Amino acid sequence: MSRHVIVRTSKRVPEQVLKGLAEAGASTVHEADGRRGAVSPDLRPIQAGARIAGSAVTVSCHPGDNLMIHAAVEQVRPGDVVVITTTSPSTDGMLGDLLATSLRARGAIGVILDAGVRDVAELRAMGFPVWSRAVSTQGTVKASPGSVNVPIVAGGQVIHPGDAIVADDDGVVVVPHARVAEVLEAARARTANEDAKRQRLAAGELGLDMYRLRPLLEELGVVYVDES
Amino acid sequence: MSRHVIVRTSKRVPEQVLKGLAEAGASTVHEADGRRGAVSPDLRPIQAGARIAGSAVTVSCHPGDNLMIHAAVEQVRPGDVVVITTTSPSTDGMLGDLLATSLRARGAIGVILDAGVRDVAELRAMGFPVWSRAVSTQGTVKASPGSVNVPIVAGGQVIHPGDAIVADDDGVVVVPHARVAEVLEAARARTANEDAKRQRLAAGELGLDMYRLRPLLEELGVVYVDES
Amino acid sequence: MSRHVIVRTSKRVPEQVLKGLAEAGASTVHEADGRRGAVSPDLRPIQAGARIAGSAVTVSCHPGDNLMIHAAVEQVRPGDVVVITTTSPSTDGMLGDLLATSLRARGAIGVILDAGVRDVAELRAMGFPVWSRAVSTQGTVKASPGSVNVPIVAGGQVIHPGDAIVADDDGVVVVPHARVAEVLEAARARTANEDAKRQRLAAGELGLDMYRLRPLLEELGVVYVDES
Amino acid sequence: MSRHVIVRTSKRVPEQVLKGLAEAGASTVHEADGRRGAVSPDLRPIQAGARIAGSAVTVSCHPGDNLMIHAAVEQVRPGDVVVITTTSPSTDGMLGDLLATSLRARGAIGVILDAGVRDVAELRAMGFPVWSRAVSTQGTVKASPGSVNVPIVAGGQVIHPGDAIVADDDGVVVVPHARVAEVLEAARARTANEDAKRQRLAAGELGLDMYRLRPLLEELGVVYVDES
Amino acid sequence: MSRHVIVRTSKRVPEQVLKGLAEAGASTVHEADGRRGAVSPDLRPIQAGARIAGSAVTVSCHPGDNLMIHAAVEQVRPGDVVVITTTSPSTDGMLGDLLATSLRARGAIGVILDAGVRDVAELRAMGFPVWSRAVSTQGTVKASPGSVNVPIVAGGQVIHPGDAIVADDDGVVVVPHARVAEVLEAARARTANEDAKRQRLAAGELGLDMYRLRPLLEELGVVYVDES
Amino acid sequence: MSRHVIVRTSKRVPEQVLKGLAEAGASTVHEADGRRGAVSPDLRPIQAGARIAGSAVTVSCHPGDNLMIHAAVEQVRPGDVVVITTTSPSTDGMLGDLLATSLRARGAIGVILDAGVRDVAELRAMGFPVWSRAVSTQGTVKASPGSVNVPIVAGGQVIHPGDAIVADDDGVVVVPHARVAEVLEAARARTANEDAKRQRLAAGELGLDMYRLRPLLEELGVVYVDES
Repeated sequence: MSRHVIVRTSKRVPEQVLKGLAEAGASTVHEADGRRGAVSPDLRPIQAGARIAGSAVTVSCHPGDNLMIHAAVEQVRPGDVVVITTTSPSTDGMLGDLLATSLRARGAIGVILDAGVRDVAELRAMGFPVWSRAVSTQGTVKASPGSVNVPIVAGGQVIHPGDAIVADDDGVVVVPHARVAEVLEAARARTANEDAKRQRLAAGELGLDMYRLRPLLEELGVVYVDES
Repeated sequence: MSRHVIVRTSKRVPEQVLKGLAEAGASTVHEADGRRGAVSPDLRPIQAGARIAGSAVTVSCHPGDNLMIHAAVEQVRPGDVVVITTTSPSTDGMLGDLLATSLRARGAIGVILDAGVRDVAELRAMGFPVWSRAVSTQGTVKASPGSVNVPIVAGGQVIHPGDAIVADDDGVVVVPHARVAEVLEAARARTANEDAKRQRLAAGELGLDMYRLRPLLEELGVVYVDES
Repeated sequence: MSRHVIVRTSKRVPEQVLKGLAEAGASTVHEADGRRGAVSPDLRPIQAGARIAGSAVTVSCHPGDNLMIHAAVEQVRPGDVVVITTTSPSTDGMLGDLLATSLRARGAIGVILDAGVRDVAELRAMGFPVWSRAVSTQGTVKASPGSVNVPIVAGGQVIHPGDAIVADDDGVVVVPHARVAEVLEAARARTANEDAKRQRLAAGELGLDMYRLRPLLEELGVVYVDES
Repeated sequence: MSRHVIVRTSKRVPEQVLKGLAEAGASTVHEADGRRGAVSPDLRPIQAGARIAGSAVTVSCHPGDNLMIHAAVEQVRPGDVVVITTTSPSTDGMLGDLLATSLRARGAIGVILDAGVRDVAELRAMGFPVWSRAVSTQGTVKASPGSVNVPIVAGGQVIHPGDAIVADDDGVVVVPHARVAEVLEAARARTANEDAKRQRLAAGELGLDMYRLRPLLEELGVVYVDES
Repeated sequence: MSRHVIVRTSKRVPEQVLKGLAEAGASTVHEADGRRGAVSPDLRPIQAGARIAGSAVTVSCHPGDNLMIHAAVEQVRPGDVVVITTTSPSTDGMLGDLLATSLRARGAIGVILDAGVRDVAELRAMGFPVWSRAVSTQGTVKASPGSVNVPIVAGGQVIHPGDAIVADDDGVVVVPHARVAEVLEAARARTANEDAKRQRLAAGELGLDMYRLRPLLEELGVVYVDES
Repeated sequence: MSRHVIVRTSKRVPEQVLKGLAEAGASTVHEADGRRGAVSPDLRPIQAGARIAGSAVTVSCHPGDNLMIHAAVEQVRPGDVVVITTTSPSTDGMLGDLLATSLRARGAIGVILDAGVRDVAELRAMGFPVWSRAVSTQGTVKASPGSVNVPIVAGGQVIHPGDAIVADDDGVVVVPHARVAEVLEAARARTANEDAKRQRLAAGELGLDMYRLRPLLEELGVVYVDES
């Protein structure tokens, strides 16, 4: 009854949209999408300073088995981000520098991994960014079936193939394919708005005044007290 | 019955004391205060190499809501460290580069956050140090009441407004306001003492001899065995 | 009935073997030993870029007490790695720069610590590598008995004195003393083999083809689907 | 851009199917669906011995806020199971005996809660079963928007309104609405099959023989050794 | 500089107040105190069905050492609840049936333990209730100093000697000594109010109507959608 | 290089010794062996009230794969306890009522499982005790090699085949085969001693006096203070 599939799909986010999302960064994109799409903070970057946006190629693996990542490589197109999960919790090191070399040869720009990664020194030297739940020397086998390009859950978020993935030092955010254009627009508006706010705050204006929060504090019953 | 307050207080640790505590560093200060005040190691720095000491401005927030951090900004004086907690566990990203810009404009030198932070790339670029439980893209609202400058628990330690906060790569330590002078004195004595010990150990002297631990081992029944 | 011992032993891994294991790195050595010996990924390096291999000097401590590390220093020989555990879970900072200075004076090249470390800024400045479960300001006492150079469990692996410890950015791996020569041989073969594979993958060859995985996918019932 | 909705839907699993799934139990249903649908083992029952199956009414709440559970009550029909998640991790006690009374009045037969529950003594006395991530006295507010009957992730599984939820002492399993009939059939076949196997195993037949695993062990290179 | 003290104090909560708080239960008391005082849900009861309220006798222990619990026994008066924490995280079994026998002989009615407990079968048989972070066979020593009846942090809450502790199947709540009377009054009002609400909800009235939440949903922009 | 073996061994603990260890219980046996052998408190019983002692049959499995448990059944003799671990962390439900039926048919009296269990309602009904890290509906495969009756680490303790396993409501303790006789003797002495102490404590004698701890408190600098 379990049917494992590898879906060949051409659904991708337009390159210009991805470029804009990467410029905005993960936290801003999350806000721009109505505070949705935040992948669990337990998935952390193994490097500092990377900021990417790409279309998701999704992979569902048996824990301790990376066979399906090999199957996924063939489905990767330039600019893609590979998002990998396991069918039950695992921290095993499912991806190392060999698989990363193969993924990069196909044009992948990074990996999101709800499991473990290894060869991190080599991956950092390659400049190939990875966000993962763990770093682990524990190796895996290539023996169990799974699926490529089906909807998965990674870090508590549903990710469909072709969704936009934005990742940086703050973590990882997913934007459903159907909303990428409107989210980009909102992100740009937000960024412009933030630049203006930043200048006012740097000049000493208080958020209490800028956001008009004093009446809210009063309404909520928060009172000021001078320490005797 | 719940009463939320913002306390205006001028209780601060003298600048010269803070300077001395920063020089000593968090671990030495913790020892100098009789091994007290260690905030949970789950609160980690987002940067490497920062070492600060400041007077605590405390903030108690509803989880997922940073309204009270905005209220706290107004209470900050130059040299302060803002210590933020939530009324139930949360990893949401409550503080980003805009709030940090505002805090810095008031003179704050860093933030301790028993919750999540975001915009960490920007914060690192600004050189604004933060110690937090998580890094998270997850945004928050500004809708719920809380308190500023009341006693709080952050990372398992009680922190009062005006306490000294010392933070570096090792983590965060709190020293109650009433003990800062004696702790500084003890920390200085300790540092001087450690320099002498370091030289002796570097020269090959054993801690077993320097601390006279051999009789203790014997008393505790620890015996030496030569492997056959 | 509890008998605490300090075992004096000359069991060490030959220097040439250790050199080879360090060149291979932790993940490759783990594979070369049949995917065995991976210490828990919860033990992380406090520095980036270190890669060491040494003979284990083992230490079993009471939680919150580092007396036995002092006792272990005397048992260290040049090239050793000190592996420390506690008799119940603890994150206290059991080792700082003073103990590291003492260990280095005896020739130790690094520490594996299933507990907490402190003075990490100083340790990084010294270039003394440590892998630990936590970084913590919390200090310890020197009051309770324990053992040196007995078999211990650290990070879920049994470690005997004289075993080879390999540690780098991926984590920590232990190789039992009796298997070090064959593991080194296998690691070298593996490294040579990986270089060849890396070139083929970088040139665009797929792992599916290189490892002949397509028949396996078919046998496992994985089917290809074109998205309509 | 964030749009919160309450979806009125009549999609339900037929009563006879639910009855069959409840008889099979969560673990058997999971196997019958090709080892899919297992909700995280971190969600545990607050009672022993309950075994239910119902159609999912889904709820997405702000952490620390149970407003949307109140909105969901109106959407409940007899035999439903209410599945609740929060937009970021929370252990707050979002549901107590008052809400459970209201849910039961509408015909709900249980709750799955990826957060905290309280009034557990009263809930046990009522015989109203709940599976949750935590038990917590921490109360919540009714102030933030969310959604009812949209796809959610709870315990790492995607759950759509109208999916079948099966829960017992082993935990919680979800079966997508479209597969409930075939899964029930497979579960029944499996149960019948297990009864036969149980008798043979109870009589002393070995799984090695019954499942014909000896050749597999040999093929995998597992060898028998007699201890000298 | 570290000064360890055992404070003899007669500060207690009046018996009638404690009786009322126990009747209300932990979750109701927490609400009645403005949603404050919830001890971490990680502290769980080892038994089902106990519901107690008593005055806190506080104990701060070195991890892995229960000496100070012995010292605390002498400070216990009939009706007290002993609240124990450690100076760094520990799950060791610090309290067993012998200590419980001694505590009961002095009149203690239960223990809150931010660490581990053991002899739980015997404690259940005795009917002596304990809430703890862990159950553990790991024994402790009696060798390190600590304090009795000083303010401590247990389960993330500050607890002063003489505060009211309310504990039941939902967990543990602390009420500061100065607020016990007003909290009891509020709890009673709340309980009366909840009985009325329970009847209305049981009769099928919706919380949406009873709490007048429909306008709030509308104001928050939550819209109703009929599934096509 | 990885060699998987199934060791046939007759090493068992004498029945009379096991009977005595079971009477003493896990915590007392742990104390009697010098506070050694405590398996992690993360392994919890699925039932209340069981107390067993048996000889260990050890099993090392690939995560998510229970093939080797089937292989282990054949090695079980009446009175044995099967101790199962995985080569990397896993919570999957590796053992259910079918395997338990098979184990019981061979005479096994319980299972210790550093992974997940399922069919817990059935196991409780059978009266077959299990201590495990998780309860999980997640099923496993029978496809990967492993070993039976080799030394393993479970719950942080090394366990050799033929060691004594003692388990009850407090958790699990292992006693190395070579020490079982002396540990039993010490446990009996301890139990007798505890009965006498219990009577004295129940009569109101303080541990401070019975254990002569007052001089120790004084020596440690603990002082008594009367609250003004």
